[in-house]
Amino acid sequence: MSNRIITISREFGSGGRTIGRKAAAELGLPCYDAELIGKLEEATGLSGEYIAERGEYASHGSWLASAFSDRDHNGHSVQDDLWCVQRRVILELAKNGPCVIVGRCADYILRDAADCLNVFIYSDMEQRAKRIVKQYGVRDESPEKRLREKDRRRAAYYQFYTGMKWGVVQNYHAALNSGALGIDTCAEMIALLYDRKFCER
Amino acid sequence: MSNRIITISREFGSGGRTIGRKAAAELGLPCYDAELIGKLEEATGLSGEYIAERGEYASHGSWLASAFSDRDHNGHSVQDDLWCVQRRVILELAKNGPCVIVGRCADYILRDAADCLNVFIYSDMEQRAKRIVKQYGVRDESPEKRLREKDRRRAAYYQFYTGMKWGVVQNYHAALNSGALGIDTCAEMIALLYDRKFCER
Repeated sequence: MSNRIITISREFGSGGRTIGRKAAAELGLPCYDAELIGKLEEATGLSGEYIAERGEYASHGSWLASAFSDRDHNGHSVQDDLWCVQRRVILELAKNGPCVIVGRCADYILRDAADCLNVFIYSDMEQRAKRIVKQYGVRDESPEKRLREKDRRRAAYYQFYTGMKWGVVQNYHAALNSGALGIDTCAEMIALLYDRKFCER
Repeated sequence: MSNRIITISREFGSGGRTIGRKAAAELGLPCYDAELIGKLEEATGLSGEYIAERGEYASHGSWLASAFSDRDHNGHSVQDDLWCVQRRVILELAKNGPCVIVGRCADYILRDAADCLNVFIYSDMEQRAKRIVKQYGVRDESPEKRLREKDRRRAAYYQFYTGMKWGVVQNYHAALNSGALGIDTCAEMIALLYDRKFCER
């Protein structure tokens, strides 16, 4: 039987990472997010910064430009290599045992390889803006502009590598508004959903 | 303080009505769905069948046609009258006490008038198709075609009267996939979210 994995897809600034970590702690499962970046550093020799940025986001500029930038004459890019390694590492993690994986298209990568509970975490612009200013400080660009740009680039990345639209609720088992419900309630709900979906059969 | 209301928006065939009823029973709250139709029959003199159909769905045909059909020379339609009465009845219900209201744009109508927990219930096409065949029987049109038509008309109705896009997750506090999670788990989650959102403050 394939392993039971929670995948967390999230809007930037929605606290999805913290929620994943809390849900994992509640269930006694490992949570892969920063750890995943470490594994990818080892496997690719790329910097953690590059992996954090280009393992989930299309590059700046227009969608078309971002999809085809940095490609060699075979139409291949470093970002494609990263995608392949990322895919392999996520598939291996899922084989090792139940866990929580945050971001990195794990919902798509594991669709036929694990028994997944796929959750989408989102929040309104105001709450996300507050959160990123608190977490990453003030920048020249307004937090709202930074968020819109991040959303656009994450959606473009997801669409390019999975062929699916990012953040469409029908792709998930549940979607939770972290700004309205709170981080702790979201983590509690995910742990409960995991329990109901997997442990009571 | 305004009352605490659960609004359930749902895809046709997702079991949202049953989920609303179960969550309400768990919380000891009244649930308004068919009851609402009864109240609207009394208030408008329109038939229950007309209310069930035209209080949530644009008429058949194209969006533009549906938005402007059946209008008198002032651009006013029976459907607009129904919308106004429906709005008034829902506002009154929300004043009377905590409750669950299924459908009928209650999420939008109560946005400034009550303390709402807005939930969206959805499911994949296959599960919904099974459910409507079981519930309403086989028709000439395939269940998938019926569902697509219902989705389209419900979205058009919602957009026409609220100016907002129907089923976009950002408009809700939570969205639950009833096909994947099961009717009982969804009802349990809603009762728990209500508890966490309102009863632990």
